Amino acid sequence: MTIEALAARVRAGEPRALARALSVVEDETPQASALVGALYPHTGHGAIVGLTGAPGAGKSTLVDRLALGWCARQRRVAILAVDPTSPFTGGALLGDRVRMQHAGDGGVFIRSMATRGHLGGLARTTADAAIVLEAAGYDLVIVETVGVGQDEVEIVRTADVSLVVVVPGMGDDVQALKAGLMEIADIYVVNKADRDGADRAAAAIDGLLSLQPVAAEAWRPPVLRTEATSGAGVEAVIDATEAFLARTAPLVETRRRQRAAARVRDLALRQVWGHLEREALGPGGFEALIDRVAAREIDAHAAARALTARLLEGR
Amino acid sequence: MTIEALAARVRAGEPRALARALSVVEDETPQASALVGALYPHTGHGAIVGLTGAPGAGKSTLVDRLALGWCARQRRVAILAVDPTSPFTGGALLGDRVRMQHAGDGGVFIRSMATRGHLGGLARTTADAAIVLEAAGYDLVIVETVGVGQDEVEIVRTADVSLVVVVPGMGDDVQALKAGLMEIADIYVVNKADRDGADRAAAAIDGLLSLQPVAAEAWRPPVLRTEATSGAGVEAVIDATEAFLARTAPLVETRRRQRAAARVRDLALRQVWGHLEREALGPGGFEALIDRVAAREIDAHAAARALTARLLEGR
Repeated sequence: MTIEALAARVRAGEPRALARALSVVEDETPQASALVGALYPHTGHGAIVGLTGAPGAGKSTLVDRLALGWCARQRRVAILAVDPTSPFTGGALLGDRVRMQHAGDGGVFIRSMATRGHLGGLARTTADAAIVLEAAGYDLVIVETVGVGQDEVEIVRTADVSLVVVVPGMGDDVQALKAGLMEIADIYVVNKADRDGADRAAAAIDGLLSLQPVAAEAWRPPVLRTEATSGAGVEAVIDATEAFLARTAPLVETRRRQRAAARVRDLALRQVWGHLEREALGPGGFEALIDRVAAREIDAHAAARALTARLLEGR
Repeated sequence: MTIEALAARVRAGEPRALARALSVVEDETPQASALVGALYPHTGHGAIVGLTGAPGAGKSTLVDRLALGWCARQRRVAILAVDPTSPFTGGALLGDRVRMQHAGDGGVFIRSMATRGHLGGLARTTADAAIVLEAAGYDLVIVETVGVGQDEVEIVRTADVSLVVVVPGMGDDVQALKAGLMEIADIYVVNKADRDGADRAAAAIDGLLSLQPVAAEAWRPPVLRTEATSGAGVEAVIDATEAFLARTAPLVETRRRQRAAARVRDLALRQVWGHLEREALGPGGFEALIDRVAAREIDAHAAARALTARLLEGR
């Protein structure tokens, strides 16, 4: 099947074509770029919802509930699970999740993104997978990941709106918030809100929020409470997410531009690096160059100049 | 002062020249590359010791103790503090630290690296700062950072040997270990070992270690206990660090090579990006390209090809 034919069948919503297209972008095959190019003009109507939080925060269950809630509002929902700690496991609704996975047309589409120990690349392929899903007609793509490191934060940055999930009694979550998640949270969700300490967790987040300056027109992230296992509070999270997307459209647009710029830079430099490694110094040339650095004949700056000299000379 | 003159004065151990040289590499001024190039041939005798751990683990106090211990063994010690959560604050030995800072020749040299919210670049400048310090005659450069994200892990990767500090009663530290610190730890330090839960923390780390396959010749990370405020256990940490550097020399050499390769790649791509942004598309060209991506006229892959086309054409 040609890439054009595959793209057409993705747009027609064929489940098998969709699965294959996602494999193409996930494996970063040579056709990935052409496929994304063919589908990208047909995107723009949907939204990417990022959801992150520490392991054990009940993210999968919450994502399932959110997906079901949006389905009830006649929105088509896809889930990209890029949580390396629990791909398709650990949730109380695992049964539902598997069932949804096989629901076919009209149901929630779920895809677990393989990590292969290479999260940096995953941020790249997640962005392409979201384009495929949006072109296939999904209105909402929920990207679920575990918020422990910078790479996961990068994955969440592929989203138009970001939900950060915390649970009571994990004091260090507040540390994690300070360390980076705070920057990306548009909505906070205190999950397992029936547990002791829910008030304290919410108060801790409010405390951190009060330290941040908020422009008059800006969105102030709400702190919502859910019990994902029972579904309590989930509708309010959906409402808040919709409100964010509706009310902060210019902000969402700015983010999309920044993301586009970062992606173009990343892709361009990957092309250039492929060229440099293959051709700039000939076979084994890069290794020989590093040998010289290791032997302290030249330093890394000089080695970098040697590597790029032919490419950049006279330009 | 020329860069050659500055380099000579750094090598002569002049404190003012050293401070100025560190500012040159930290600010990534145009001379930074020439300065590092002049100093790099005069390195190789010293070792970089990385030390990381969650906020509140007592890292600063422990680093101070380690530095004093190495001084007593007639080693010259410099500290690069790149902990954005507590640059020069929060430690019980703050007084000592300030005193050491002014101790001048023969004392411990301490430098706080500015973060400016840009940790990615900090890994780069930390590596250059360590070269400057080693060329200035320091035998040990202790790089202290807070282990919460991927970028901090990158900073620790600039080290020849990595110490990971945990404290009893922070259950989520084990999560953090699972999430990345475990990969880089050569030595574990359970600090504040007089607290309840020290046994449990050590046992938790041992449990994680027992899950990892260890080659016959390989180093098995020891789990040591310290009370940094009293100094108890610090000598054993110094012994273990020296043992690691002596016994695993081939491993240290392999790491240095990998680091050199990653640095050369990073520096080369920064040069290329500078060129692309400035010249490939003319003034405002990159922004115009991103406009087209945002308008969905072209996708990111096609934009990247447009950006690199002239550079890579016919090559």
